[in-house]
Amino acid sequence: MSVTFPEGIRAAGVASGIKGDGALDLAFVGFSDGGAHVGAAVFTKSAAAAAPVQVSRDHLRTSKGRIRGVVLSSGNANALTGGAGLDAARLMTSLAVANLGGEKSEYLVCSTGLIGIPFPIERIEPGLALLAAELGTDPHAGERAAHAIRTTDTFAKEAQAVGDGFRVGGMAKGAAMIAPNMATMLCVLTTDATLTPERAQSALGWVVDQTFNRITIDGCTSTNDTVVLLASEVGSEPGPDFEESLLEVAAKLAYAIVSDAEGGSKVGRVRVSGGATVSEAETCARRVASSLLVKCSLLGSDPYWGRVLAEVGNALPEADMSAVSVAYQGIRVCEGGLDASARLSVADRRRLDHRMQEREIVIEIDLGRGSESVEVLTADIGHGYLEENRGTS
Amino acid sequence: MSVTFPEGIRAAGVASGIKGDGALDLAFVGFSDGGAHVGAAVFTKSAAAAAPVQVSRDHLRTSKGRIRGVVLSSGNANALTGGAGLDAARLMTSLAVANLGGEKSEYLVCSTGLIGIPFPIERIEPGLALLAAELGTDPHAGERAAHAIRTTDTFAKEAQAVGDGFRVGGMAKGAAMIAPNMATMLCVLTTDATLTPERAQSALGWVVDQTFNRITIDGCTSTNDTVVLLASEVGSEPGPDFEESLLEVAAKLAYAIVSDAEGGSKVGRVRVSGGATVSEAETCARRVASSLLVKCSLLGSDPYWGRVLAEVGNALPEADMSAVSVAYQGIRVCEGGLDASARLSVADRRRLDHRMQEREIVIEIDLGRGSESVEVLTADIGHGYLEENRGTS
Repeated sequence: MSVTFPEGIRAAGVASGIKGDGALDLAFVGFSDGGAHVGAAVFTKSAAAAAPVQVSRDHLRTSKGRIRGVVLSSGNANALTGGAGLDAARLMTSLAVANLGGEKSEYLVCSTGLIGIPFPIERIEPGLALLAAELGTDPHAGERAAHAIRTTDTFAKEAQAVGDGFRVGGMAKGAAMIAPNMATMLCVLTTDATLTPERAQSALGWVVDQTFNRITIDGCTSTNDTVVLLASEVGSEPGPDFEESLLEVAAKLAYAIVSDAEGGSKVGRVRVSGGATVSEAETCARRVASSLLVKCSLLGSDPYWGRVLAEVGNALPEADMSAVSVAYQGIRVCEGGLDASARLSVADRRRLDHRMQEREIVIEIDLGRGSESVEVLTADIGHGYLEENRGTS
Repeated sequence: MSVTFPEGIRAAGVASGIKGDGALDLAFVGFSDGGAHVGAAVFTKSAAAAAPVQVSRDHLRTSKGRIRGVVLSSGNANALTGGAGLDAARLMTSLAVANLGGEKSEYLVCSTGLIGIPFPIERIEPGLALLAAELGTDPHAGERAAHAIRTTDTFAKEAQAVGDGFRVGGMAKGAAMIAPNMATMLCVLTTDATLTPERAQSALGWVVDQTFNRITIDGCTSTNDTVVLLASEVGSEPGPDFEESLLEVAAKLAYAIVSDAEGGSKVGRVRVSGGATVSEAETCARRVASSLLVKCSLLGSDPYWGRVLAEVGNALPEADMSAVSVAYQGIRVCEGGLDASARLSVADRRRLDHRMQEREIVIEIDLGRGSESVEVLTADIGHGYLEENRGTS
């Protein structure tokens, strides 16, 4: 279950010393024949995009979607580091060429970690040599790569799926700074299918919009977000189930990111239905999912529908609140914009109390305005989040 | 220092039993001659606006800005309470008529507290009679009114100012759910100046935009936000310094609200300068002020400029980050989009460490794009906020 699950993909994860505590911090995912195949990527939209994002964007444009692999580092985001940061990101691709061949533009680079701190460029040369020596196509190699991109993640995030004549694998890191328009979120998806660069890019965009762009942890969008798709072209050209399989893997990784939110103890599925348009359903779902008060209610296992409606009222200032209903864990607590929990049977009330203790909480909001629906994943906000983020050291 | 500071204003605060613990929970502010004078108000823009907001909006329209006073209650917001909630809000104004004379449309009503819970309408009749009996024009009467609108506020918020031939007074309550477009924020401003209803409304709108709409605690906009201005017409028509004095009182109250944020220990002044337009400076300041990660840095007294720049990059996706500088407490920590803290002298570094321990933290962000500037007030997010808001009970 890793990026090396599809044919023709190799990976490695090593400790280069960026992190300083001997943990894995440098990874590579590329093609096992050493050649250039299909690559696509989606990046953060922030004006403060980190050096590796700027370099990777350039390389993808120059190589026209034919790349050899991606170098990923954790511990320092190489963001807001100016010209020296750009030099460091470019050096990572030069050293990939020196060790693995090809052109600089055939390599992408991703970094994650603290921002605004000079990148420890001196670690990279020995690190890349180590990486090149460790490359493997076995699950263990993929697993080490997944570990090497962790920051405050408590576990490595991997997923896979099998389609009709192809395989899909993937790894991701998340933790905090997760919001629509991506996050400090790195993800590499791999497949052995044969895709054109155009299909790879369009499939990736479609999948990211429905997965990584529909999760929120703290509403903070990162400088480093990158999702890469590598296709080794070992297999044949897949049918439309390829996009579905890619979605499946990305959805699993997105869920894993939310379930491992910094200091989080709950996953909230905010399902908005009955929207007149997808856009209004999405606006509502995002607003509820991002609400600090709704997140506090999740922390307290409290089915406080009033806060949900207050956010719906803010998201859609022209909405008719008397058409809105809300259910927690399948149990209706608000009907016609009013409290329905007082009318619950003793058994239902007990069931609700019990089910609110579960790790995953489903909040269903019916706007009563149409038939469009959207789901956004969120996490509660816990004391651990505050402690994790109060200081840089 | 209270709403009764201007001539011709009377007030009271009583315990009606809404709160259940014997605390003050019902207030009145109106004109001491018992007649109708000038009133203006600004309300929440939420579609989930509470019953008292709906009723007050109607009354203000019907009375064309000639009102006798405002009844305020705390402990139950009478929000998302449907027809019964509207009945309760209307009853509060009927009982004001029964006790104090005039027409229903000459009374406004405000409530704050938990939302989605039936309003204890049976408390109102004896409560209003008690209120009417306690009305006074002394500072103590105003102070009791200010106490009666508190919810999780740790202190009553009052302010006053003296202008050329007029006085201004005010009281407010805040705590949580404070965000642009107001909040669970109630405020009554009073003056003895003579204003037309048009001038009162336009002065109030101008002042609210620059004060209560430029503070943020948790980004959650409430169902109940209301700011009322009452003018007793005892004095003469004031010059343009009236608007300045009104701004001064509102700014003091807005500051008091942020400094008393639920679970907060810091006030952050986010000053964005160098904007090409006021709008982009404001977008930036709001984004930085609302950022959960920036709030965590405030909690930790950490001058983490990287998070500030990351938010600027999100707020203005076309910005040139190399033009941006950031100072904490007057000490430049980021210059040209890059770390400048490493170049600080030992003395400056020590001064920065020391000054970050202060209660008020000034974050100055120069966008380097123009000459427009905007300040938004924020608070840190502390463990107390999570505990206060995790459950309804």
